[in-house]
Amino acid sequence: MEPVLLGAVTILALLEQAYFSLQVIYARRKYKVSPPNTSGPPEFERVFRAQVNCSEYFPLFITALWTSGIFLHQGLSCVCGLLYLYGRLQYFWGYAASSQGRLAPLYFCAKALWALIGCSSVGVVLSFCRMYLKVDLLQITASALR
Amino acid sequence: MEPVLLGAVTILALLEQAYFSLQVIYARRKYKVSPPNTSGPPEFERVFRAQVNCSEYFPLFITALWTSGIFLHQGLSCVCGLLYLYGRLQYFWGYAASSQGRLAPLYFCAKALWALIGCSSVGVVLSFCRMYLKVDLLQITASALR
Amino acid sequence: MEPVLLGAVTILALLEQAYFSLQVIYARRKYKVSPPNTSGPPEFERVFRAQVNCSEYFPLFITALWTSGIFLHQGLSCVCGLLYLYGRLQYFWGYAASSQGRLAPLYFCAKALWALIGCSSVGVVLSFCRMYLKVDLLQITASALR
Repeated sequence: MEPVLLGAVTILALLEQAYFSLQVIYARRKYKVSPPNTSGPPEFERVFRAQVNCSEYFPLFITALWTSGIFLHQGLSCVCGLLYLYGRLQYFWGYAASSQGRLAPLYFCAKALWALIGCSSVGVVLSFCRMYLKVDLLQITASALR
Repeated sequence: MEPVLLGAVTILALLEQAYFSLQVIYARRKYKVSPPNTSGPPEFERVFRAQVNCSEYFPLFITALWTSGIFLHQGLSCVCGLLYLYGRLQYFWGYAASSQGRLAPLYFCAKALWALIGCSSVGVVLSFCRMYLKVDLLQITASALR
Repeated sequence: MEPVLLGAVTILALLEQAYFSLQVIYARRKYKVSPPNTSGPPEFERVFRAQVNCSEYFPLFITALWTSGIFLHQGLSCVCGLLYLYGRLQYFWGYAASSQGRLAPLYFCAKALWALIGCSSVGVVLSFCRMYLKVDLLQITASALR
């Protein structure tokens, strides 16, 4: 398996983060908040915190995306990944508009991330059983259902 | 080598981060600190900073875990990784209780992380010598000791 | 391809982050800013923000480095990676000295990171065409130029 699709989603995620960083730079200029300050009018602080939150979750997302993609299924992981990235965009715009506006997309992102963590776990358990216990759970399930 | 054990430790790390994030949400409710604010009573700020610190180190940890696991030894890396994750849990609980309480587990985590960085370095040097200099340092050492 | 060079640049990046973290610890002692506080004299805040900014970009950097190295070219990615790490060091020292001093190296780092994202994108597009469309764009370009 060549992880081309995972690579494509990864690049999208990088571009999204770059977009968020640029928005903070614009907000710093607009509201005249020079580094190293991070406090200012609520409009600025919301954009700033939105970007910080997205950055904080970026490594969790990339880690879960690749673990799930490598151990379970590339295509499925990429679908969850795209949903997550879409949710993050909504989150950023929503948070920039109002504190309340961040909530719905945040729950959406959390669900997509949990889906990736769930897929990772299933994938790792399946691989573990196959490698160390010489048991192919997928095949056993398939036989049982037949 | 299929990196199943690295995958398992990675998932544990993701779950631990999820647990820390939930604790911040509970602390926000308990001490009535609504986003985008991050200042509040010291009890809240300690939980918040503990989570920020763990998030900040998460990518360093994952990077060192996998570099060490791929280039040197999967099992050894996973042991260091589990120690690190255990230390982080103690750190989080200790910091939530008092500023002082974060120190001992922080030093413990730092040691586990340095062990992973050390293993990564040894692994990369060995691989480099094998690939580019056609020298197998492990075999040379083994012969010298015989 | 064994990603030894990517591994080496990754370890350098980890060591650089460790160096930045130590600088914050020294600055906390020097300016007597105890955790969980993050506010203090501007000299402290600049060192603190410099480290936060480097930590925030660390996962983006590692992700772009490996995506570019795996999908396009290991050596090229490592050169960009080394430039980025050199820029980050200049950024940290510059920011510690003055807010203004962070700007030139920050633009330099941004260029190195964009180069990595660009290489990643080219690599993923080439791999995608080869895998899913059975088209080798590199060979076509080479033939056209002959």
